[in-house]
Amino acid sequence: MNTDELVELAQQLRVDSVRAADAAGSGHPTSSMSAADLMAVLFAHHFRYDFDRPAHPGNDRFVLSKGHASPLLYAAYKAAGAIEDGELLTFRKLGSRLEGHPTPRRLLWVETATGSLGQGLPVGVGIALAGKRLDRGGYRVWVLCGDSELAEGSIWEAAEHAAYEHLDNLTAIVDVNRLGQRGPTRHGHDLDAYARRFQAFGWHTIEVDGHDVDAVDRAYGEALSTTGQPTVILARTLKGKGVSAAQDREGLHGKPIKDADEAIAELGGLRDLRVYVHEPTATRMLHAVRAGHLELPRWEKGTPEEGVATRDAFGQALTALGTGRSDIVALDGEVGDSTKAELFAKEHPDRYFECYIAEQQMVAAAVGLASRGWVPYATTFAAFLTRAYDFIRMASVSGAGINLVGSHAGVAIGQDGPSQMGLEDLAMMRAVHGSTVLYPCDANQTAQLVAAMAGCEGIRYLRTSRGASQVIYGPDEEFPIGGSKVLRSSPHDRLTLVAAGVTVAEALAAADALDRDGIQARVIDLYSVKPVDRLTLRRAAEDTGCLVTVEDHHEEGGLGDAVLDAFLDGRPVPRLVRLAVRTMPGSAAPDQQLHAAGIDAESIAAAGKLLVEEAVVR
Amino acid sequence: MNTDELVELAQQLRVDSVRAADAAGSGHPTSSMSAADLMAVLFAHHFRYDFDRPAHPGNDRFVLSKGHASPLLYAAYKAAGAIEDGELLTFRKLGSRLEGHPTPRRLLWVETATGSLGQGLPVGVGIALAGKRLDRGGYRVWVLCGDSELAEGSIWEAAEHAAYEHLDNLTAIVDVNRLGQRGPTRHGHDLDAYARRFQAFGWHTIEVDGHDVDAVDRAYGEALSTTGQPTVILARTLKGKGVSAAQDREGLHGKPIKDADEAIAELGGLRDLRVYVHEPTATRMLHAVRAGHLELPRWEKGTPEEGVATRDAFGQALTALGTGRSDIVALDGEVGDSTKAELFAKEHPDRYFECYIAEQQMVAAAVGLASRGWVPYATTFAAFLTRAYDFIRMASVSGAGINLVGSHAGVAIGQDGPSQMGLEDLAMMRAVHGSTVLYPCDANQTAQLVAAMAGCEGIRYLRTSRGASQVIYGPDEEFPIGGSKVLRSSPHDRLTLVAAGVTVAEALAAADALDRDGIQARVIDLYSVKPVDRLTLRRAAEDTGCLVTVEDHHEEGGLGDAVLDAFLDGRPVPRLVRLAVRTMPGSAAPDQQLHAAGIDAESIAAAGKLLVEEAVVR
Repeated sequence: MNTDELVELAQQLRVDSVRAADAAGSGHPTSSMSAADLMAVLFAHHFRYDFDRPAHPGNDRFVLSKGHASPLLYAAYKAAGAIEDGELLTFRKLGSRLEGHPTPRRLLWVETATGSLGQGLPVGVGIALAGKRLDRGGYRVWVLCGDSELAEGSIWEAAEHAAYEHLDNLTAIVDVNRLGQRGPTRHGHDLDAYARRFQAFGWHTIEVDGHDVDAVDRAYGEALSTTGQPTVILARTLKGKGVSAAQDREGLHGKPIKDADEAIAELGGLRDLRVYVHEPTATRMLHAVRAGHLELPRWEKGTPEEGVATRDAFGQALTALGTGRSDIVALDGEVGDSTKAELFAKEHPDRYFECYIAEQQMVAAAVGLASRGWVPYATTFAAFLTRAYDFIRMASVSGAGINLVGSHAGVAIGQDGPSQMGLEDLAMMRAVHGSTVLYPCDANQTAQLVAAMAGCEGIRYLRTSRGASQVIYGPDEEFPIGGSKVLRSSPHDRLTLVAAGVTVAEALAAADALDRDGIQARVIDLYSVKPVDRLTLRRAAEDTGCLVTVEDHHEEGGLGDAVLDAFLDGRPVPRLVRLAVRTMPGSAAPDQQLHAAGIDAESIAAAGKLLVEEAVVR
Repeated sequence: MNTDELVELAQQLRVDSVRAADAAGSGHPTSSMSAADLMAVLFAHHFRYDFDRPAHPGNDRFVLSKGHASPLLYAAYKAAGAIEDGELLTFRKLGSRLEGHPTPRRLLWVETATGSLGQGLPVGVGIALAGKRLDRGGYRVWVLCGDSELAEGSIWEAAEHAAYEHLDNLTAIVDVNRLGQRGPTRHGHDLDAYARRFQAFGWHTIEVDGHDVDAVDRAYGEALSTTGQPTVILARTLKGKGVSAAQDREGLHGKPIKDADEAIAELGGLRDLRVYVHEPTATRMLHAVRAGHLELPRWEKGTPEEGVATRDAFGQALTALGTGRSDIVALDGEVGDSTKAELFAKEHPDRYFECYIAEQQMVAAAVGLASRGWVPYATTFAAFLTRAYDFIRMASVSGAGINLVGSHAGVAIGQDGPSQMGLEDLAMMRAVHGSTVLYPCDANQTAQLVAAMAGCEGIRYLRTSRGASQVIYGPDEEFPIGGSKVLRSSPHDRLTLVAAGVTVAEALAAADALDRDGIQARVIDLYSVKPVDRLTLRRAAEDTGCLVTVEDHHEEGGLGDAVLDAFLDGRPVPRLVRLAVRTMPGSAAPDQQLHAAGIDAESIAAAGKLLVEEAVVR
């Protein structure tokens, strides 16, 4: 396209953005209009993509980090012939694929869900990592960012990661339109301010007038020819560009243009230009998955005598899984010696990604890798996954299949104290839509679950423990997701103890103690916290009438609440007692911590006894 | 102190760090030893603090951002005469004030809990903001950071915030010892790499040999005399400095020195030096709290006809609270026109802090402000508070009293789609230890709760809604925290509908529909989600036998689970049905969203009817 055609195309994108938002009665036309020239030139000259084959391995990848500018994206899809004009006008309506913020669950051309700012670039880094280090398919990653979102620390985690990994297949385009939601950004149109920051982090920077299509064209060319480092194009633009009632004005963020017809007329009226996006050049398969024989680590029951930490079992199992499957990759937040991801790193260094202490970027990179078909396991302390909760939430909006593993869960870690204890992780992960939450208590169970979780949909979470625990299952025992294990039961059970992870051993010891008092207790190992084994819990309730749940987690949202899932169908509910961490722990030895929290064997036995006695009285 | 004395003091801090970790059998002596000279010079010459009066308004504030180096902090406390040698050796033991990572709940000299890296500097920025913009007391804030934690994006949010606010009362000291937990950092001893980044963000930078006490002394002096911008001192150090078996070696992070006696001998043996920390110069009271007459906004029942959005009521109430109390401050993440914090900003600009799109920094700044006695309200979309979950978690470890307000909760926001919907916020906030979680349904209730939450301990969360809702309470109605409102009840109630926020109106309409079918339903407005009104719920259960909970939140960890809190004491539990958002929403109108999620009046009535009928059959 020549200059005039590019200008015309950009105007069409503006007009269609105005029309889409007008039809919806909501949306972000002004944020779309500032970036229309950037988008027009990208699609016309530089982006390589086959809209009929979004899975094509050679396709470039485009991420709209400023996801609220979705009208621009959909207008570009229309210009590229991917959607019809009629569909464009379904924007934001019930059942439409064209949601307020783009999601890959609805549109295969979307790589990742955006809408929470500062996430597109981090995920783009993950895709570029896949392209550079794994796929080697020659595709490029283009990320269109807003200027407001550069205030998010996650952008600088991504900047650091991308430069350190020399991702010259990544181009960030920043639409510096100077206006955020409620007013001017910190740096306005000071492109140099942003350039200094990106340069300091090791990026090649280009400053450009974002409404000069030829200059933008040259900037993309320069990005394409830059090697050894990622490029950021800082484009000076005007929000609402082209419509005098909106251009560069405050107070119009996220609002349809008031007089759409007048705006469309000012923009030169309707057009029906078609942009022919170049097809990808690379055609070879990027990674043929090799699924060989899977040989998980095995432990004989009761050996070694000192037990095995589930984090150790995790590290060994993940390493074995990586040997058996070539699509497994691992990421860690600079604690691989603690999470035991270092075992994988040693065996499969080409598929290991050290993310340093940047948990948001670690999860974002996992989402990016998953979008390219890799099966990522991202690990850090359970406590520090809270740092990435918004990314985990958005990964679920994306429908991304990622495995998260949190070590050092609960007060059982001991002396390090509350800052290092995962005590909210089960609640956080359970509340994520469609998630799977697993909490193993021994080494064989851990190994089986590490392998099984790779096959789940959506967000999967495995919680591991710092200290050693006894190997209580044989190496051939099976642990289906959604299942549980009844570790002790008799026809005379008068209550059921439900435990998981470190509290399983405590519950077993409590059952012994209760037995000595003449009270038979059933013990359930609820290793699958979500989905939960409703049938087994329901049967236990019917058989015993009383349940005590015990967990090394705050009392809200964890194992106790998960058990309730079995009893929310209107049928009778058993008597319940929930034991959990109710105080703020300090530093102490692991056994002292369990005792202080009231979740050790002695506490469980006492609670169980009281519950049975009260049930008799009433 | 002269050079020799400073060197001696630093060696004592090393020896005591080794001794404390040795006595504990765990801890981080090597990370303490690298920063010992930095600490010695700071305490001896520049830090102004009265250990007998930690509340002294003129005290400088010291934050150990690398919280794992707690042995160094405690050794410095000992040298300053604040604790005895015997207490130093209780480090990490049950009941000791000297936890693995320092917390203000235990030690009044600690400003904020650290241990999750990348948080100390952000909180320090909050304290420095208080010093600069509110207290004007002349105190300085000193933050000792590790180099590994500079990979956290939150550090760069803080860097941006501090430079933008010209916080020349803030000095960051980075102990660049080149080694993280599992190995070298990205930049090793390349001080320039860090300097470039801080300079780009607008900081004054000083590079120094962190083991040259005179050079360090000069660096602090330069920081003190720098105006208009914050200063970072980048200090080249060696981890484990002074002990040849540990110095600059990998694999020794977080481990006591193997042969402590030999290490102590190499460090020159025990010393008993006392450092006289300068007293603060400022003495005047920094802010006398003015608590005037509180005139909250008032709405008459049913007016205005179109209803009032609880976010609007929040903005008005917060503004009124700010007028009545001079210690109220507000922070927002660049969405004040949506959260309605802009009303406060307009009325009380001196007490309003625009944090731009950096939610971690917003919460950290709130924690810092709270540590200086201010009562912060920090606002953004409920969905985006997930970005700051690790900061919220750590704020609760600190025992910080902060108010968080999340707007645009639930599917009821409509067209914007799932990225903007708070659907995990109740779960996330409930799981925080000691938190208070409030979810009002009308304007008067919101206003009362906004005022009441200021008086709670710990983390308080208020959830507001985007759309208007009817004013169903009078302006003089009271809403104690931990209470609820029975909106409908009769002696013939056969079930109870428990709702909060937007589902209250739906539950009332459902009760009308059920009534037409001859089924009387009690309706409870459970505005206090945590703590929950156990008595009222228990009574409803006893009276009606069946409960239906309905919430605009994912099914895990929210209102439904909160209701269960009332029934976990071993007494009989009613039949339960939980209605919540079980699917991933797309874009649609608010009423379509409620219907699709199965939480509108029609769905509630259907579920209620089925539950009553089933209860009769069984």
